[in-house]
Amino acid sequence: MSSINERYPVSCAFCKIAKAYPAESSPVPANPDPELIDPGCYLILSTPQVMAFLDIMPIAPGHILLTTRPHYEKLSDMYAPPKSTDWASEKTATQAKEVSQAIGEWLPIVSRALCAVTGIEDWNVVQNNGERAAQVVPHVHFHLIPRYQEGRREIGGKGKVDYGMLKSWKVFGRGSREDLDEEEAQVMASSLREALKVELGGGKAKL
Amino acid sequence: MSSINERYPVSCAFCKIAKAYPAESSPVPANPDPELIDPGCYLILSTPQVMAFLDIMPIAPGHILLTTRPHYEKLSDMYAPPKSTDWASEKTATQAKEVSQAIGEWLPIVSRALCAVTGIEDWNVVQNNGERAAQVVPHVHFHLIPRYQEGRREIGGKGKVDYGMLKSWKVFGRGSREDLDEEEAQVMASSLREALKVELGGGKAKL
Repeated sequence: MSSINERYPVSCAFCKIAKAYPAESSPVPANPDPELIDPGCYLILSTPQVMAFLDIMPIAPGHILLTTRPHYEKLSDMYAPPKSTDWASEKTATQAKEVSQAIGEWLPIVSRALCAVTGIEDWNVVQNNGERAAQVVPHVHFHLIPRYQEGRREIGGKGKVDYGMLKSWKVFGRGSREDLDEEEAQVMASSLREALKVELGGGKAKL
Repeated sequence: MSSINERYPVSCAFCKIAKAYPAESSPVPANPDPELIDPGCYLILSTPQVMAFLDIMPIAPGHILLTTRPHYEKLSDMYAPPKSTDWASEKTATQAKEVSQAIGEWLPIVSRALCAVTGIEDWNVVQNNGERAAQVVPHVHFHLIPRYQEGRREIGGKGKVDYGMLKSWKVFGRGSREDLDEEEAQVMASSLREALKVELGGGKAKL
């Protein structure tokens, strides 16, 4: 029991997600049940190194978090070149290197899926370390935050996102976060998973 | 001439840096001359895949940009799993994968060097894509922005940063960016290079 708790700190929200949704054979989970945990998790990516899911307090529709599967509190806790050559240090460094590289690899792929689904061309990636930097969950994560154009109808006009689906969202302004609507989230997550499969060449895992 | 222009778009500020400061045998450049280009560049990291240097309009002292050496405009232009198996597609994908992985690897290392030099424990990483997301230079880059504690004297008290050196900086607030002071920048960049060498095990390249 203690070893499980060490791997999955019970108090960490993202470690709970990691535990509830183990990595599958494909990076894109088949049809994950959001209600395996509470609050629900709208998972779109799940590998041994990283996971991505919808932010439960989105700044804009499609607000995604890309996080490490293992628990690292801050970015500085991730990959460090090993200072000693003992077996444990090398192993820790190798795992952290794989996870750190995976973050770099998946940021572009998840970004393209986000653009494809929402029709946006502009977005911010934000990763906060520590309280003064607005980090809330103490487990490294990157926010992918779409920046929609002002004329929301244009987005619908492109046929990429259903305008009606976005109606209830407050898109602009950092202060306007609200709880994720479950139905909208289900549709968004499903669309993102499909877009990720296309990115990976029709659903075949290439990473 | 055309092939050089293709690799280094003349209009891109960061491609100018890439051209002026080729990768050396060590990731940490020995003693780079900031005045090889205008505005000056305070380089702290230089590999075939990535570069890092001080932001010339820092939000806080130690504000670093980590960027790709090759030109990619947005994050979405970086690694994509190859859709076809022809030689050119595979080669492009392999290069982009190495660069994307390197961003993931170096973010933690550069973060630790930043913490060591400035004494901060909290910082933001921000990467902007497109005009609406406040991207200014159209070449993928990650901002590393220290968040200092309010009592600045405490920082000096830890002996990690000379309090006098920070006096002229406006640390707080996104609106308070000012031009980099050349002397302060020289000291900061030199300290960051030394800290990076320590991170890499005494200056030996381990990546």
